[in-house]
Amino acid sequence: MAVVGPHPAVADVRRAVREALADLPRGAVVLAACSGGADSTALAAALAFTAPRLGLRGGLLTVDHQLQEGSGERARAVADQGERLGLDPAEVLTVTVGTEGGPEAAAREARYAALASAADRHGAAAVLLGHTRDDQAETVLLGLARGSGPRSLSGMAARAGHYRRPFLDLPRATTVAACRALGLHPWDDPHNDDPRYTRVRVRRRVLPVLEGELGPGVAEALARTARMAREDADALDEWAGSAYRDCALSDIGGSVTLSVAELERLPDAVRRRVLRRAAIAAGAPSGALSATHVLAVDRLVTRWRGQKPADLPGGLSAARRYGTLILAKSPHHA
Amino acid sequence: MAVVGPHPAVADVRRAVREALADLPRGAVVLAACSGGADSTALAAALAFTAPRLGLRGGLLTVDHQLQEGSGERARAVADQGERLGLDPAEVLTVTVGTEGGPEAAAREARYAALASAADRHGAAAVLLGHTRDDQAETVLLGLARGSGPRSLSGMAARAGHYRRPFLDLPRATTVAACRALGLHPWDDPHNDDPRYTRVRVRRRVLPVLEGELGPGVAEALARTARMAREDADALDEWAGSAYRDCALSDIGGSVTLSVAELERLPDAVRRRVLRRAAIAAGAPSGALSATHVLAVDRLVTRWRGQKPADLPGGLSAARRYGTLILAKSPHHA
Repeated sequence: MAVVGPHPAVADVRRAVREALADLPRGAVVLAACSGGADSTALAAALAFTAPRLGLRGGLLTVDHQLQEGSGERARAVADQGERLGLDPAEVLTVTVGTEGGPEAAAREARYAALASAADRHGAAAVLLGHTRDDQAETVLLGLARGSGPRSLSGMAARAGHYRRPFLDLPRATTVAACRALGLHPWDDPHNDDPRYTRVRVRRRVLPVLEGELGPGVAEALARTARMAREDADALDEWAGSAYRDCALSDIGGSVTLSVAELERLPDAVRRRVLRRAAIAAGAPSGALSATHVLAVDRLVTRWRGQKPADLPGGLSAARRYGTLILAKSPHHA
Repeated sequence: MAVVGPHPAVADVRRAVREALADLPRGAVVLAACSGGADSTALAAALAFTAPRLGLRGGLLTVDHQLQEGSGERARAVADQGERLGLDPAEVLTVTVGTEGGPEAAAREARYAALASAADRHGAAAVLLGHTRDDQAETVLLGLARGSGPRSLSGMAARAGHYRRPFLDLPRATTVAACRALGLHPWDDPHNDDPRYTRVRVRRRVLPVLEGELGPGVAEALARTARMAREDADALDEWAGSAYRDCALSDIGGSVTLSVAELERLPDAVRRRVLRRAAIAAGAPSGALSATHVLAVDRLVTRWRGQKPADLPGGLSAARRYGTLILAKSPHHA
């Protein structure tokens, strides 16, 4: 190592990894999920440097999705590079990608299942993911375009279960510069340039226009928004959880009865979350339950003029009866 | 009027105005703020049609900002058109625009001051503003680019004080179509095409790219996000208000003392709002108080390791002492 210290980008990625691992006990196993791209190659290198200095054992997992010609050889090369960096284990996880929910979702599902099972097998305390601030900004924009509310703006969590994302505050350019400074040659996944993927269009076309027209701090502003939106959503979920307990007169086997008087005391944002919880507790499939459904139930509380029960997915409906709101299978109300 | 009923766009703008006015008592005065552009010309026409049918008195206000050659004649023409539509009063408000906060902010300030004073003078129950769903989408994107959190994503309120915005869920194209169908000729303010304004660049360059890459529902999704973000922010402000009362041990003349134990019980999003309130109650100028300031105070609560007081704008600081947090003028802590 030169006396002048590491390249600033290398120092940045190492510091980010060190801070993300500061709470782990000596001897813990930490695995970097590495695709071979710049982000996760910088992650693997930073882990290889940092883990021994923190008394941790650093390893690498790379997933072969078997979707492209030569993917097995490439995964092997990524694992070999991990070994050369001093990571142990340095494993290839070979998966078979299904089709459910589209190619992106199916590949993600298979990848996370393989990572979780390998983490279990190695008794890992943490699995590190290489998502950067740019990935976070893209995620926020995708959530914004769905318009499904502040929760969808919260992007990815810095920590969720076993997973940790040390680079969520670092620009992608830092990981590219770190790889270059370390003499590592990341592999560019052609999928990352395929404009059939919405995320690729956000990265290549939307974010550059936003930065050009609104100023260079847009990615950072989006990441900041994500952090605040996540905190807000967590706090409101906590409130809704306690409000649900106050409102629920009964909650037994597919039928939930709520007190209208209690519901009326809540602010809109909390009342709608309580109604959403009630619908799910009564058996509505959460994926099919839209904001429009919840609003229809809400009108039984806030704009009551004797209207009919509101239909909910899963064959449920919500009906108002003598100061209560009953969410249950429709026949009961027919 | 043809037997087939009005053009769909005309029906839409009239319905939006009718719904926005449904709660007003007979005889109330409602004034449309009209620039002469398509949005507010459609608004004025819809008010002229709707007001008499609801037993209301509809009028028009137009502001001459005196910033462009011929602005006085144009304002007069807008008022005359209002009169021909049957609106009474139909008034020109002539204002002098200052320079504080930049040209856009200064013009807005002068405009709203003139509208508020005219509304008072006429005893108006409501002043209608012509902002559409597209304006709302632009406002959300501008808030997003600032990255100042979910409150800045809440866009414009459908109602705020005297002001009501009936078109916040209507696309701008509907107002343009309504004007055309009614034979009205709106005036295109050249400022609306001047790319020196950030909002104009958002309208002309950013939103079209978002719609092109992410799908045509983006403006609607942004407006929906605004509504939900506003509800969330309102609920959290309510929580923070009550939490502040629980945490404040004293709040007298520029010095606020909070209980650390009470602060620790709060979720991040609420605790930071409480700290922000406390700083403002202690005398920090709200405009100068950034998220970074609040986070430094927050670390005195959540990451206490004997650190120095945190500086706040307005010559204040926050210090932790024996289980309390004291926000006051700095000398007290020196």
